[in-house]
Amino acid sequence: MTRFTKGHGTENDFVIVPDPDGSLPTDPEWVAAVCDRRAGIGADGLLRIVATAKMSGFEHQAADATWFMDYRNGDGSTAEMCGNGVRVFARFLVDQGLMEPGEFAVGTRSGVKAVRVPADGDITVAMGKPSWPEAAARIAWNGRDADSVHVDMGNPHAVVFVADVAEAGALYDAPTWSPATVYPRGVNVEFVAPVGPQHIAMRVFERGVGETRSCGTGACAAMIAAARRDGAAPGTPYTVDVPGGRLKVVERSDGVLELSGPAVLVARGELLGRLDVG
Amino acid sequence: MTRFTKGHGTENDFVIVPDPDGSLPTDPEWVAAVCDRRAGIGADGLLRIVATAKMSGFEHQAADATWFMDYRNGDGSTAEMCGNGVRVFARFLVDQGLMEPGEFAVGTRSGVKAVRVPADGDITVAMGKPSWPEAAARIAWNGRDADSVHVDMGNPHAVVFVADVAEAGALYDAPTWSPATVYPRGVNVEFVAPVGPQHIAMRVFERGVGETRSCGTGACAAMIAAARRDGAAPGTPYTVDVPGGRLKVVERSDGVLELSGPAVLVARGELLGRLDVG
Repeated sequence: MTRFTKGHGTENDFVIVPDPDGSLPTDPEWVAAVCDRRAGIGADGLLRIVATAKMSGFEHQAADATWFMDYRNGDGSTAEMCGNGVRVFARFLVDQGLMEPGEFAVGTRSGVKAVRVPADGDITVAMGKPSWPEAAARIAWNGRDADSVHVDMGNPHAVVFVADVAEAGALYDAPTWSPATVYPRGVNVEFVAPVGPQHIAMRVFERGVGETRSCGTGACAAMIAAARRDGAAPGTPYTVDVPGGRLKVVERSDGVLELSGPAVLVARGELLGRLDVG
Repeated sequence: MTRFTKGHGTENDFVIVPDPDGSLPTDPEWVAAVCDRRAGIGADGLLRIVATAKMSGFEHQAADATWFMDYRNGDGSTAEMCGNGVRVFARFLVDQGLMEPGEFAVGTRSGVKAVRVPADGDITVAMGKPSWPEAAARIAWNGRDADSVHVDMGNPHAVVFVADVAEAGALYDAPTWSPATVYPRGVNVEFVAPVGPQHIAMRVFERGVGETRSCGTGACAAMIAAARRDGAAPGTPYTVDVPGGRLKVVERSDGVLELSGPAVLVARGELLGRLDVG
């Protein structure tokens, strides 16, 4: 019997599958079938919970992190990290009694991540330091174009400041950029508008996916681009409204960005038929 | 604890909630929250299973049908019938031992429906007789337009014959029709292309919803329009390929259309947090 829980963080949603021994098959076809929104449960991705000591290639993280987040995209491919996913993952660990509330670490493909999990309320994760590659591009979308700020959060982001996020229009098609050589492997584009002091709204077009309801690294990129523009000192918290809810981002004095936001578990049970893999 | 099962028929998907006593609240906000694809389980609609004798206003159907399908659209509004939903509903009844495999009746807001449920394999439902209102319209979509055949299956359908369903293009926007007075409450538009003898492919734009993976009444409308065009005799089975799978439709000698197709249960469990209504 394959047990699952479904949850979301600012409407970035996940199927969580506990697999302490790391014994479940994780072929892309199965992951994609589980994440299929009509023929499966449906989710942006799958979070497999494996004892870090059993996670091939990442056993060395076990000294710091008891549990490893094996994140898979909805198409079955592996991904390194997901700022919304790690909050949902941490909420599940505490909900199930696998970890006590408080501060602890989670293993991921992009290293051990520190999380802060109160008994309830928003969960915080340290997302790492942004870098500022020299290159910048002009972004074009829906017949418009504008300059962007390039922020790298482990993945590339092009932040476009607009007066209102509605200016992004209906984002059916991926934005393009010039010069084309700046982002040889694509880029995530954030459209960022002011809401109030230290408060921005954001819409995001994720490369290879489309417009999404939320993006953790995108919220970090948008915040730090806005904070630099505003001349805000480290430690100044920013609120980032995304279509799926509200996130908070703060730059620590060591330059690491901390992302806080909700994580909600909505259902749990067992997979049936061809989705049940043991 | 609110128990649920998720299932689909040709990728038209449903959350099934057993409620024999008819005691669960069914406010539209709760239904919409359960059906929300990111903040809930996600589905096209919710099927509440109520003992027909307990279903207010439909108790008279209890003499014929033990169980009533209280179908709700994903936005929380009630709907009369759903040809894909009733198959999933019937599969659940047999899977749970609430009914024996074979032929039985299901109560719905559009009357008692006869279903044929083998122990496994395709499930058949009698969908009623089509009617042929005099009016016909010219349908316009994506800068093209064509004549249509008007078929009423309890809801209105405009069937457009094309050489290939790809001609429908990207159906982001609802097709329009002229004269506009023909469909004062909107219309479902089917784009129907030949595949082989007694075999068609269909894409459908459902009014108020958008393009969907399948539509039971749409498959019936497409089949009978094709069968009339072909001069096929009653009893001639047609295969209807939809984006979400394969359906079969046959016109009985009494004029009733029978729809057959798969029904798959993919997960079951319990709703959590604000979705758990007792």
